[in-house]
Order: sequence, then C-alpha cells, then structure tokens
Amino acid sequence: MTAHAGGDGDDGASDPSGAAGAASEPGISGAASNPGGPVAPSEPGGSADCLFCRIVAGAEPASIVHADDAVVAFLDAVPVNPGHVLVVPRVHASGLVDLPVDVGAAVWRVAHRIAAFMRSDPAWSEGVNLHLSDGAVADQSVGHVHLHVIPRFKDDGLRIVQDRDPARPSRDELDAVAARLSRDLTKAASSS
Amino acid sequence: MTAHAGGDGDDGASDPSGAAGAASEPGISGAASNPGGPVAPSEPGGSADCLFCRIVAGAEPASIVHADDAVVAFLDAVPVNPGHVLVVPRVHASGLVDLPVDVGAAVWRVAHRIAAFMRSDPAWSEGVNLHLSDGAVADQSVGHVHLHVIPRFKDDGLRIVQDRDPARPSRDELDAVAARLSRDLTKAASSS
Repeated sequence: MTAHAGGDGDDGASDPSGAAGAASEPGISGAASNPGGPVAPSEPGGSADCLFCRIVAGAEPASIVHADDAVVAFLDAVPVNPGHVLVVPRVHASGLVDLPVDVGAAVWRVAHRIAAFMRSDPAWSEGVNLHLSDGAVADQSVGHVHLHVIPRFKDDGLRIVQDRDPARPSRDELDAVAARLSRDLTKAASSS
Repeated sequence: MTAHAGGDGDDGASDPSGAAGAASEPGISGAASNPGGPVAPSEPGGSADCLFCRIVAGAEPASIVHADDAVVAFLDAVPVNPGHVLVVPRVHASGLVDLPVDVGAAVWRVAHRIAAFMRSDPAWSEGVNLHLSDGAVADQSVGHVHLHVIPRFKDDGLRIVQDRDPARPSRDELDAVAARLSRDLTKAASSS
C-alpha cells in the first residue's frame, strides 16, 4: 500500500480540469472533477502526489456520488455522457497487483450498484460500460486504481477499435494458451 | 435468473468461431472459443439459446482457463492478444441488472486474480484492461454477462476513441449531476 509502488500509470495527471487525463485515455479520461468538499480524513497510505488520494482526503475538488469506508465514487471531469463515474478505493493502489482482493471486490460492488441503477432508468443510460485500465500501455492516466462506470447512449461516439486485423487462432492454439495460463495461475497461487 | 430476461444484448451471437461477436464488438468480441470438454452439469437457470450458458454446461467448445462453483473463465476466440479471457457467471444473467450482487463479486475476483497475475509477468502482458459491455448500445454482443480480461502490449492496436469533442462540464454542472445521481441511487436502494 505504499504510494505508487509498482505502478506504471501516469501519476503526473494532476490537472483536475481533466486535460492531462484526456490526452492519454481518450473517451475515458480518468480525470477527477469539481468540488464536493472533504470526503474523509486523509488515508495513512495515501500520497500527496496522487490526484485520487487527494480527492479521497478531501484535498482536491470532486463531485462525489458515493462514499463509504472502502470506496469513493465521483464524476469524471471529461465524461463520455453525464453520470460517467470513477469508482476508486480509499487506499492507494497504483494497479491491480497492489490492490487488496477484498478492496477490489468493494470497488466492484459499488460500480455494479451504480451501473445496475443506470440500466434500470433510461434517463440515465441505454447501456453501460465498466472499464479499468491498468498500466500505461492500457491507457491508464492516473496511477490510482479507478473503475469507470460509463453510461452509454445510441450514437454517443464512443468506440473501441482495433487497428489491425483480429487474430483468429485455431482451436489447438487457443487450447495451448488456455492450458499454459491455467497452469501459470495455479503455480502463482501456490507460491503466494 | 430466467433466460435473457430484461436484456438487450445480441443473443444471436451463437457462432463459436467468434465471427458474429467480432462484428458488433470490435476488438473485444465476447466470442467463445474452442473445446475444453464439459465444464459442469447444466445450470437449471441456463438457456439452450445462450452461447455462454452452453459453454458453462459443457455443450459448446471453449478453452477453459478457470472454473469454480460460481464462475467460468475461458479464452475469447478473437483475442486482442493471447490470453484474452472472458469471465462469466455460471448462472444466466443477461446484464448487470439481473446479476446477483455476490455472483458479480465472484466474477470480479476471478478477473482480478487473472489480471494481477498477468501484470506481474511481462510475458503475459505489459498492461491489462478489464471491460464489460451491458446493452446493445454499449456493444454487448452475447446476452450473458461477461467481463473481459485483456492483456495489453505496446502498439497492439486497441484504441478507445470518441468521435465527438469531449464535453467539459462546469463545476456547477458536475455537482448538479452528482447530487441528482446520488439522490436517485439512495432512492433506488430504499425502494428495493
């Protein structure tokens, strides 16, 4: 839970206007927003260098949607659509590797609740994406785990594209990858 | 837990080659893959019309990475990169609205474990995206909840783009949306 340990996200995205985040994570900026007043006392494991730790500590403006013992949810400053939420753990974790399992589940539960509500009310969404970027090559823009809840509407302009032709591995190739991954997962679990 | 109740996903994506999924969810097809033999007995709530229910029941080929009481994880047939996994609940749920909260958390935990492992081994990934599409406008291609675990590498060609200029709401606008969403969430929780 040390600050930024092991992360490769862009921890420099400290512009609360969202400009820095939008540059590296188009469509889903990971940028915080506007004032909601203090959310909670500072987390001991937090970092003054981390935008989302500062939001959790109430030291940075944000428009808070939900806050509990483990999780804070606030609006993305550069929303795909109104109600685009970022759900973050209170404890600092730069990525999924240093995010405690139970805290991750708490983040998910809040995102699930918000997403299910939005899906049940057509004024809030016609569809929802949940999205998390871990690592610079995955377009993580703020080095503190954040799960996007993105309300979607027809023709809202958000698209996931692949610049190259998708691979279509054979059955044997897929089975070989699955066997290797399954074995490596088991090995990693037994050695941890 | 009735089959496809309330869902607006494309339940017609029954082509295990992944072609149908790839057409509607570029880059993250949601398509199942190859033979792994039976995974488990049929789920009572499952549907013969649902590709992922058939995989869970062992009636459709798939390259299985992980299986437990609540969750099955298998390879996407049209992977962004090798090791692209779909994590699905055994019970049929077309979307997040009809996915039981604890089952959703179980799906997340498996995805978190796989993603954290991949992030700790550069042979498997340099970054990871977790992604879930709920609803046709959000590019859901198979009408059974599935959480993508997408290993990422530099220049792998996957991009999230926004076709219009992103909105940059004012502080007051964001605060108004947050207040409305927070109030609606509380109201929904108290009436459920």
